Amino acid sequence: MIKTGIIGATGYAGSELVRILTNHPNAEITTITSQSYKGQNYNDIYENFRHIEKICEEENIEKMAEECDVIFLALPHGVASKKVNEKILQNTKIIDLGADFRLQDINVYEKWYKTPHKAKNILPEAVYGLCEINRDKIKGKRIIANPGCYTTCSILSLYPLVKEKMIDLKSIIIDAKSGVTGAGRGVFLSTHYDEVNESIKAYKIASHRHTPEIEEQLSYAAGENIILSFTPHLTPMNRGILATIYAGLKENYSYGDIKTVYEKYYKNEYFIRLTKEGVFPETKWVKGSNFCDIGFAVDKRTNRIIINGAIDNLNKGAAGQAVQNMNILFNLDEKTGLDYPAIFPV
Amino acid sequence: MIKTGIIGATGYAGSELVRILTNHPNAEITTITSQSYKGQNYNDIYENFRHIEKICEEENIEKMAEECDVIFLALPHGVASKKVNEKILQNTKIIDLGADFRLQDINVYEKWYKTPHKAKNILPEAVYGLCEINRDKIKGKRIIANPGCYTTCSILSLYPLVKEKMIDLKSIIIDAKSGVTGAGRGVFLSTHYDEVNESIKAYKIASHRHTPEIEEQLSYAAGENIILSFTPHLTPMNRGILATIYAGLKENYSYGDIKTVYEKYYKNEYFIRLTKEGVFPETKWVKGSNFCDIGFAVDKRTNRIIINGAIDNLNKGAAGQAVQNMNILFNLDEKTGLDYPAIFPV
Amino acid sequence: MIKTGIIGATGYAGSELVRILTNHPNAEITTITSQSYKGQNYNDIYENFRHIEKICEEENIEKMAEECDVIFLALPHGVASKKVNEKILQNTKIIDLGADFRLQDINVYEKWYKTPHKAKNILPEAVYGLCEINRDKIKGKRIIANPGCYTTCSILSLYPLVKEKMIDLKSIIIDAKSGVTGAGRGVFLSTHYDEVNESIKAYKIASHRHTPEIEEQLSYAAGENIILSFTPHLTPMNRGILATIYAGLKENYSYGDIKTVYEKYYKNEYFIRLTKEGVFPETKWVKGSNFCDIGFAVDKRTNRIIINGAIDNLNKGAAGQAVQNMNILFNLDEKTGLDYPAIFPV
Amino acid sequence: MIKTGIIGATGYAGSELVRILTNHPNAEITTITSQSYKGQNYNDIYENFRHIEKICEEENIEKMAEECDVIFLALPHGVASKKVNEKILQNTKIIDLGADFRLQDINVYEKWYKTPHKAKNILPEAVYGLCEINRDKIKGKRIIANPGCYTTCSILSLYPLVKEKMIDLKSIIIDAKSGVTGAGRGVFLSTHYDEVNESIKAYKIASHRHTPEIEEQLSYAAGENIILSFTPHLTPMNRGILATIYAGLKENYSYGDIKTVYEKYYKNEYFIRLTKEGVFPETKWVKGSNFCDIGFAVDKRTNRIIINGAIDNLNKGAAGQAVQNMNILFNLDEKTGLDYPAIFPV
Repeated sequence: MIKTGIIGATGYAGSELVRILTNHPNAEITTITSQSYKGQNYNDIYENFRHIEKICEEENIEKMAEECDVIFLALPHGVASKKVNEKILQNTKIIDLGADFRLQDINVYEKWYKTPHKAKNILPEAVYGLCEINRDKIKGKRIIANPGCYTTCSILSLYPLVKEKMIDLKSIIIDAKSGVTGAGRGVFLSTHYDEVNESIKAYKIASHRHTPEIEEQLSYAAGENIILSFTPHLTPMNRGILATIYAGLKENYSYGDIKTVYEKYYKNEYFIRLTKEGVFPETKWVKGSNFCDIGFAVDKRTNRIIINGAIDNLNKGAAGQAVQNMNILFNLDEKTGLDYPAIFPV
Repeated sequence: MIKTGIIGATGYAGSELVRILTNHPNAEITTITSQSYKGQNYNDIYENFRHIEKICEEENIEKMAEECDVIFLALPHGVASKKVNEKILQNTKIIDLGADFRLQDINVYEKWYKTPHKAKNILPEAVYGLCEINRDKIKGKRIIANPGCYTTCSILSLYPLVKEKMIDLKSIIIDAKSGVTGAGRGVFLSTHYDEVNESIKAYKIASHRHTPEIEEQLSYAAGENIILSFTPHLTPMNRGILATIYAGLKENYSYGDIKTVYEKYYKNEYFIRLTKEGVFPETKWVKGSNFCDIGFAVDKRTNRIIINGAIDNLNKGAAGQAVQNMNILFNLDEKTGLDYPAIFPV
Repeated sequence: MIKTGIIGATGYAGSELVRILTNHPNAEITTITSQSYKGQNYNDIYENFRHIEKICEEENIEKMAEECDVIFLALPHGVASKKVNEKILQNTKIIDLGADFRLQDINVYEKWYKTPHKAKNILPEAVYGLCEINRDKIKGKRIIANPGCYTTCSILSLYPLVKEKMIDLKSIIIDAKSGVTGAGRGVFLSTHYDEVNESIKAYKIASHRHTPEIEEQLSYAAGENIILSFTPHLTPMNRGILATIYAGLKENYSYGDIKTVYEKYYKNEYFIRLTKEGVFPETKWVKGSNFCDIGFAVDKRTNRIIINGAIDNLNKGAAGQAVQNMNILFNLDEKTGLDYPAIFPV
Repeated sequence: MIKTGIIGATGYAGSELVRILTNHPNAEITTITSQSYKGQNYNDIYENFRHIEKICEEENIEKMAEECDVIFLALPHGVASKKVNEKILQNTKIIDLGADFRLQDINVYEKWYKTPHKAKNILPEAVYGLCEINRDKIKGKRIIANPGCYTTCSILSLYPLVKEKMIDLKSIIIDAKSGVTGAGRGVFLSTHYDEVNESIKAYKIASHRHTPEIEEQLSYAAGENIILSFTPHLTPMNRGILATIYAGLKENYSYGDIKTVYEKYYKNEYFIRLTKEGVFPETKWVKGSNFCDIGFAVDKRTNRIIINGAIDNLNKGAAGQAVQNMNILFNLDEKTGLDYPAIFPV
């Protein structure tokens, strides 16, 4: 059994980790910590775990590193990079669900996050844990930067077309819609029930921090620098991300041409499901699962491709992919503990 | 592996059965049937199963009885009783999620369902599959009447107090709130999105068919005839039932007195979770799970008890309990394939 | 034009007051105040008023009393009673949307609100502003206690039957379901979107502060002391209250008998609409309006009546009724500025 | 008083017309018709009108043309063009909420709607009733084609920039999100509560019939042919449309440059509200109102503009604009009967 620890277990991503790991056949939860709820029983905070007793401990990462085979960090940006150091990494593996180790370009990090990076020596070692793309790089590593929710959905949807240069790299527009759990469990007027329910809005237009993360990864794939537009929207539902992506096609490709390219990259990827022609992903079909559904249409009138990608933001977009990374790190079948369909209707 | 068949697999309860059985370690799905979608791939109807290929067959219960160890029926009332006969029961076990075998009193059935009963010879053999109450009677049987959703929640919440005669049996009032999946997948104006969303209503006041089902089972427990009030409400959410139950206490019982009685019956029941004092069940904590959460308050001013019971109507209220019944019939640990907490927030 | 002031204009009830008064043909808003947003433009807080410029001022009730014909108070309990005094009342009329002047029995107030009453000298003068019941008492008064949302719905639904002693006064049970705006605009985990959405729960069982308010008013109607059970529920929708009320009938009354009594009291009440037999109120049909819909069924099996009352909690349950009270105080047609149907679907 | 008739009064747009006209100071409803509910009382279908008696009549447009000053048609495409003829137009004015008279190019109509146009002789006379753009053309006309919901929002958001040629006309992408009322009141699985709730999806990608409508009108503004991408999304809420629009800027325009252009066209338009810099429209701020809110950001990195437009699809997107057109036709102040802010939270 893999001994796991979770730092920041009482946020929504942390809670999803607890849920997935509780059902994982090869892992057990050794320690969970919470700054806000330390000393409390986890099932007083998340009553879905009413039948399980587990105390939120005060965080002591050094001790956890000695006791756990892997530690998941579910922390605000700027915090994880203060906690992780060489000594920790000698004792355990780190899977960081936050932003601190996702951008390899420190200048970009410091510009978008408006704070100095606090672990510049560790950063080069971190691997961007987008499993389907970086699987081979992940194996054997000590620290994994688990991708953001919007980024997972956006990159997976675009990767084959960027890699194969089928689209005009200057034309990419990502219009993404997220459920409210993406905003976390902190209480703000902007996530107060009556302010969010029955309304949709865009936010952080042309300024959301997942933009450079998408750009950096897609630029690696393209072998050249990509700048794109990314617009997130707050959608009145708990979970799910739908990305609607627009790009100009470089030639008059048919639906079949594009399909062939997606299949080249994804036909053996269990967690990526291509929809049939004329069928488009809906967030309900992935909710509660680790799947990423991808569908697309070719618009002959404009010679654009319109791609839809859908994931569960807390699962494939956070905790599910984190466990998938754990499975890779510990040489398990990637599907272990993650092989369940979406629950519907829910 | 237990070979299972599902007749009526494309309704919501059928779909939840498919989901649960797909993940069940000791069962496999041999045949699914659907009247509306026969010949179609199940994953074109429920795209959460996009990664699984399975065809909806035309129903042939005789053939299924020979091939399956157990058949689940998810059919409208009046249909199951036409299909089940002695020959079927000699070849397989039947777990009926519909109403036809729930009421032992044929007069009551015919009065409330306004149709003659079509399997009067089979009915006496059927056991009411409320697992926690009738576990011992279920074992070894050939046909199980899986309880209704409202009834499961209502009976489990009241059973200990009725059995121990702590409450005035003439005073029972059940005010129940259900998510919209309880109304099924058939398209009607009454379940059209905009008609249901952002509104709550009562329906079938003093006339809902789950009333006699609750009364019959509680009357067995009491050893005397019980008549009660039951009011269902349609609540703007997909899943979940919350029953708020009122009854006069026969003496000045304290919270502790009542708690003792609940623990007497339920302390070893894995799927029944009593909430702590001052904490009341919420449907979100059971959604997607087979748990039934129960909490209560004693109102000294009126000497009434107010009980809250919460279940997932499609899981413990339908497919989950059906699989729990299957586990009992096949001598498996009752939790097999059902041992997961609610998914939250979802 | 009636000059109006609103103290506490940035809560949801205050905002509904602003909306209603903005459209009122005989009233104008002179001053709005807000503790949290003073100095800010109201349309930066409530952007539905983007086309109107109005500044939130610092509260100065003495000055407002000189400038306004009526002041609406939308404040937490315990605050209004500190602000209102004889001098204020000599200059203006007060309509208090809070709890401080609703209970005439100071002991009951202090027991349920756990704070000493701060305007004991003013209290006897206050009239409980349930317009349909107390219309004649309201006229000419200086201070009106605008009823609570749950209480408006509950009392209106029960009043004729209590007054005519058709029901067993010891048997009354009110099971009420409210939208989330009832909890106000303050940010708490309990009203965080993902915690509330897609779930229903009871709260403050046997301890909600609207209980004594309902009891006091119904006791006046009955001429004897009434104790009852009241259970509020948080329902995943923005607006609306549905009360499902149970009571034993004192004789074997028919539907028609009861209907006659309701019509006796309400047939000329514009804002009370009795549903047809077999039709029950739904909150969607009153949302955004000042109507109270009432329907009922007689359950012959139990000889109970089950009544449904529905209102919009922010309108008839708060701001709408406050304006109705203003109309009475200023001898306007009661419907002035309030004569619009529910907006549906919304 | 303007005598109005509504053909197709029991759909959602028809119902919103009834609601608006009921409150309109210069109009009265003479006749309402419904194919599905003829002979029934309107308040049995829409119970929000419980206090009003009005019968759904069988449609007789000739008779209505003699009795009404204006007839609103709320019908499926292909139906209105069969009903309207020269004789009708000699007796009354027609405001058609459907698609039949929106496209002046018959070839485009027949290609997208896959049916021959049935009133080719009337079509040239019809004016596209986008009030803010075509006000002067509307005056004095006999037949107005009321614009679609998506189109109203999209065209108003883009018009000034297209007219002034500030954007690359080949680069326009409209990603639109609509509430479910946009799909009407017909019952289908695709609008069944549990299928829609808590999920978002795109539909009719690159093939939605509002596309040519937007293109035709913007082409008039540009003086050249525009082809664009339009993607509608079904959003889990009752009402509201948010369009997120992307276009390349033809020069390095600043926020102020763009603002100036919007103000040039809209500063005197009561129903168009420009948001402040950094503030973006949300559908909640226009719900239940006739306003169109517009905001934008200039993305220096990509030299694109991202525009957000928000309307209520049933109000400004259908019935509200229809009444605004009526006000223009009858020389009333355009705001008459439409001058109310959004109701929030609702």
